[in-house]
Amino acid sequence: MAEALVLERPRVLSLRDIDLPCAMGPDDVRIRMEVVGICGSDIHYYRHGRIGPFVVEAPMVLGHEGAGTVIAAGGRVRHLKPGDRVCIEPGIPDFSSRASRIGLYNLDPALTFWATPPVHGCLTPEVVHPASLCYRLPEAVSQAEGAMVEPLAVGLQAVHKAGVAAGDVALVLGAGPIGILVALSALAGGCARVLIYDPAAAKMAVATRYAGIEAVTAAPGDIAGFVQAATAGWGVDLVFECSGAAPAYDVAAPCLRPGGTLVCVGMASAPVALDIVALIVREIRIVTVFRYANVYDRAIALMAGGRIDVKPLISATYDFADSIAAFGRADAAHPDDVKIQIRLPG
Amino acid sequence: MAEALVLERPRVLSLRDIDLPCAMGPDDVRIRMEVVGICGSDIHYYRHGRIGPFVVEAPMVLGHEGAGTVIAAGGRVRHLKPGDRVCIEPGIPDFSSRASRIGLYNLDPALTFWATPPVHGCLTPEVVHPASLCYRLPEAVSQAEGAMVEPLAVGLQAVHKAGVAAGDVALVLGAGPIGILVALSALAGGCARVLIYDPAAAKMAVATRYAGIEAVTAAPGDIAGFVQAATAGWGVDLVFECSGAAPAYDVAAPCLRPGGTLVCVGMASAPVALDIVALIVREIRIVTVFRYANVYDRAIALMAGGRIDVKPLISATYDFADSIAAFGRADAAHPDDVKIQIRLPG
Amino acid sequence: MAEALVLERPRVLSLRDIDLPCAMGPDDVRIRMEVVGICGSDIHYYRHGRIGPFVVEAPMVLGHEGAGTVIAAGGRVRHLKPGDRVCIEPGIPDFSSRASRIGLYNLDPALTFWATPPVHGCLTPEVVHPASLCYRLPEAVSQAEGAMVEPLAVGLQAVHKAGVAAGDVALVLGAGPIGILVALSALAGGCARVLIYDPAAAKMAVATRYAGIEAVTAAPGDIAGFVQAATAGWGVDLVFECSGAAPAYDVAAPCLRPGGTLVCVGMASAPVALDIVALIVREIRIVTVFRYANVYDRAIALMAGGRIDVKPLISATYDFADSIAAFGRADAAHPDDVKIQIRLPG
Amino acid sequence: MAEALVLERPRVLSLRDIDLPCAMGPDDVRIRMEVVGICGSDIHYYRHGRIGPFVVEAPMVLGHEGAGTVIAAGGRVRHLKPGDRVCIEPGIPDFSSRASRIGLYNLDPALTFWATPPVHGCLTPEVVHPASLCYRLPEAVSQAEGAMVEPLAVGLQAVHKAGVAAGDVALVLGAGPIGILVALSALAGGCARVLIYDPAAAKMAVATRYAGIEAVTAAPGDIAGFVQAATAGWGVDLVFECSGAAPAYDVAAPCLRPGGTLVCVGMASAPVALDIVALIVREIRIVTVFRYANVYDRAIALMAGGRIDVKPLISATYDFADSIAAFGRADAAHPDDVKIQIRLPG
Repeated sequence: MAEALVLERPRVLSLRDIDLPCAMGPDDVRIRMEVVGICGSDIHYYRHGRIGPFVVEAPMVLGHEGAGTVIAAGGRVRHLKPGDRVCIEPGIPDFSSRASRIGLYNLDPALTFWATPPVHGCLTPEVVHPASLCYRLPEAVSQAEGAMVEPLAVGLQAVHKAGVAAGDVALVLGAGPIGILVALSALAGGCARVLIYDPAAAKMAVATRYAGIEAVTAAPGDIAGFVQAATAGWGVDLVFECSGAAPAYDVAAPCLRPGGTLVCVGMASAPVALDIVALIVREIRIVTVFRYANVYDRAIALMAGGRIDVKPLISATYDFADSIAAFGRADAAHPDDVKIQIRLPG
Repeated sequence: MAEALVLERPRVLSLRDIDLPCAMGPDDVRIRMEVVGICGSDIHYYRHGRIGPFVVEAPMVLGHEGAGTVIAAGGRVRHLKPGDRVCIEPGIPDFSSRASRIGLYNLDPALTFWATPPVHGCLTPEVVHPASLCYRLPEAVSQAEGAMVEPLAVGLQAVHKAGVAAGDVALVLGAGPIGILVALSALAGGCARVLIYDPAAAKMAVATRYAGIEAVTAAPGDIAGFVQAATAGWGVDLVFECSGAAPAYDVAAPCLRPGGTLVCVGMASAPVALDIVALIVREIRIVTVFRYANVYDRAIALMAGGRIDVKPLISATYDFADSIAAFGRADAAHPDDVKIQIRLPG
Repeated sequence: MAEALVLERPRVLSLRDIDLPCAMGPDDVRIRMEVVGICGSDIHYYRHGRIGPFVVEAPMVLGHEGAGTVIAAGGRVRHLKPGDRVCIEPGIPDFSSRASRIGLYNLDPALTFWATPPVHGCLTPEVVHPASLCYRLPEAVSQAEGAMVEPLAVGLQAVHKAGVAAGDVALVLGAGPIGILVALSALAGGCARVLIYDPAAAKMAVATRYAGIEAVTAAPGDIAGFVQAATAGWGVDLVFECSGAAPAYDVAAPCLRPGGTLVCVGMASAPVALDIVALIVREIRIVTVFRYANVYDRAIALMAGGRIDVKPLISATYDFADSIAAFGRADAAHPDDVKIQIRLPG
Repeated sequence: MAEALVLERPRVLSLRDIDLPCAMGPDDVRIRMEVVGICGSDIHYYRHGRIGPFVVEAPMVLGHEGAGTVIAAGGRVRHLKPGDRVCIEPGIPDFSSRASRIGLYNLDPALTFWATPPVHGCLTPEVVHPASLCYRLPEAVSQAEGAMVEPLAVGLQAVHKAGVAAGDVALVLGAGPIGILVALSALAGGCARVLIYDPAAAKMAVATRYAGIEAVTAAPGDIAGFVQAATAGWGVDLVFECSGAAPAYDVAAPCLRPGGTLVCVGMASAPVALDIVALIVREIRIVTVFRYANVYDRAIALMAGGRIDVKPLISATYDFADSIAAFGRADAAHPDDVKIQIRLPG
């Protein structure tokens, strides 16, 4: 029995004791959680009790963006020891599966993921996890930043899948947390310039505070014209669609250069009408991004080296005891808020 | 003035004299045309007088799938001489353009293309063309096969853009001329197996006469089930969409393995409703194909080496004098017919 | 205790009982071996008792090219059942290691490999192996062909690492078993033509019996001239170095086209003097190949589909009881011999 | 006749009038040169009168790293007009050649290049050049920085050919001008960290003044140990060899991670002894870099966006009238000096 933030049913949270698995194998570590961020999917479960086919049918602990400190290590663990500060990759694949073996362990159908029913999350003081999915934080990276690695990893996955080349110019559609982290990843991954568009001025203000991120200041119908003008009529090399909004797909093709790439990050809730001929005549390529694989160490290195600074994105931090208030704040979705974090007693 | 097959207006063809450009520069060759195939786009102009934004506003010579014999070579031409048998790449780009310089000359906006208004095609006894776009045919490749290089090049472009790896399994949707040439290109390009689906039994019969091409014998609603069963539940590495039919896009994702690739070859006339989430959760990649670049020499080498045999696809050959009848036959679209060719007087 | 072909010390083999591990875990299968091929590395251990840092310090069972029949399956095994005919990937990595997770499990430092000291091989009637490394053979593929998957996998790995594109032209240096299997893989992987060179006429005769493989009939000093002439002065897209002979490296660069690729498959025993400037001025790329990863299923599919026929390469088959004679034959290295196999009692 | 810095013979320079081509075609621009940097190859011609097969047999104008202002534009030029500030790509390929068409115009055998005999360079007040090889400088980029685009382009070419992924860790061997520009390109192209090694302390001091570039502080024999320790025993993703020194090749393999990439930038004057087996067992890939293609616009964009700052590398600027003194300074090769530039009267 351990205290945890439990989603009882849609819109009902409790901070209460719950039975959680705590057996530790020889390849596992036990971690004292220190910081957990609230993700859009946590809020989605909170509001709706489900995401697509994943339905919360029993009380479930929320949280999957976590960092903490190792307090015990299994007998076969070599790279971690008690006292190490770590961030934690929340999805556990079967590494010997067919998908995992070709480097796509994020696509292993057997993968289990924190706070995705029926698996509990990490908003609880202690967790047990495979050591191979825990990454040591260097001194330069705080636990709060460590808890940002998970959403940043989505941005890096987008950049990896897209295959950014040094000097590319990118357009990001959507300036929510993921849009901004994608934009930062694109810059860190080689882009010379990143243009960003969001109808919410407050979000644009947060994004464009970063050097290298430029605002698309155009009416929705004029985005392509603005982008073409900003690129001397050639178009951008990449469009990262991070809004999940169907109309964004109409904007993408006319903004891209011949042979450009559209990267789908946002989960569009309904089918999107795509003009295939418009894609074909410019040989547009589309890549899609599902979570991440093999990028945690890279995210940490980019933070540690000062190439990506996520600190300005942490809008507020609540004590574990105030977790429910933290969810209330996240649910309110203030346009100025990027990331709400919860600090555990440690 | 030269005799040519002229599209006067929709559904009206004449075999008559017309003024054609005939000046030859130092980098050009003059070619006596020998064989010209009829393409779906020729038929589309014949029926409708337009393809999308390209409208036939003045009489236009048809034909762009051509092979012939060099009869004169400009002063700077080194790799060709009179008597050489050649096939001809019908699109002329500006090779110094920004798109051309990155290897994508097919996407150069300034490219002109035979039988695409207002540019005349090659259904006339002599043409002048840049020598750099004319490819010598080895002895093992006939002029009739040479005139098949153009549509085969689309298949190879699809395979190149997709990045086929040795041992891949592919599904081709649509068994028209392009579907079959894509299937042959996929096999030549490394696929171990190619599954093909078309609702027309006669087309399937032509396609599956080739070793390595397997019929998908399932009702339209059961294609994904059939394909999953045929691949032990893993899915195919690639789906080549060659039908241009919107429902094909619903079939693609569930047939693909995690991380698989959908290749758009067919020109879907209306927007297609795409389930982005279904693509994302398996990280499906989409590539699109517009004509071809840098594949003519490869197509010829694959034919010459016996890796691709297009001869069974030449359904009928008409004399130039019977060109109008040839178009009639092509317009009738017998399901058994793959390619109708016209032989010039030579 | 089980009977096995044991290398006691250099040049001393016994067919005798030996203690072998036989415990079976829930993810393992037990296999009755049926056919085992003799590899060059088996012969190298037989002759020298070592390969580089791997020294045979205790009696070791030889053999790692094996096929057999499943006779028992562990409790968590889903894709295999008793009676299934399988071929077996002989290297066992830690699939959760850093190298494995990026798709390079062949490079995992913790990998153990049959018949690489101190690990025993498979020249014994029964083995236990992780089911995830055993691949079912379809009806069209015999056990003898199944035992050829291991060396063929090296060829496919070379083709994958090289990134063959449809219509490429390749040169293979060395027509031993690996050279020929690389040549066949290159053709199956998309090459239009494969040129091959070996000073031994008998090996060339075996190789060039295959359609698509052309002999380089030139003195050693004239190979580049021959290859340039055979490619109209452009050069080949790929050179696969399969001889392990240092002079081959001098041949490679002048045979390659601008931007071409040199693939190192053969293990050159001494350092090779490379003219870096000659590589740089044509931007030659070099890729190297160590065993294989993720290609067994592909090799089997290419065999089953008739794209690669290894049967002509099986030069002789010995009974298990005559294993020592089989090694004698392999050690004699008749230039006509490609692969010697041993058939177990089954 | 125009004034120019002329290499008369080894070690003899004159600033004198010389006959230079000045005819302008419709695709050309005439440029008033403003800044020209001195390259290592200029110094090499100055010292030795040749580089490999390129021999200075007649007086030749030096200089190929140039920026200036357009003073006239040919009739077909669209993207430039008089008054535009530009930097100039000094190699002129045939864009319709086979190499150019696949995107490798730097490898076109017909390419001519400034200050490579018998072609004159740009150390003269006016030049005529194809407009398609002249790139407009945005306001944020000075002419002095514009003249740095040429050497920076080599760095970007190295990064493009290597295929840097976001979060990579690289090691650069050699901290001369090219080594530093490669290091900056690697950071801009996605590296989280760049380690650099040079035996000259003064060069190391210049390099490590940049954030993100870390010194390898180890004796030559301990570089691999240092690098392995700095990467937790995994190795770096990339080694950029920029020293041209043969021993560097022994260092590379043991510093690389499994599957890592060695990038050859430095021109090693003698053959290098490579341990092929050491490369093979870790599947090391080698890429080579010759000048650059399609990177000028990217270099400018990265400078303009503040992603790469070359200003600290401009060690001294001489007036055109003092060109000979400038070459004397460059020839002296002070370890503190990175780039010496010459400013034309403008």
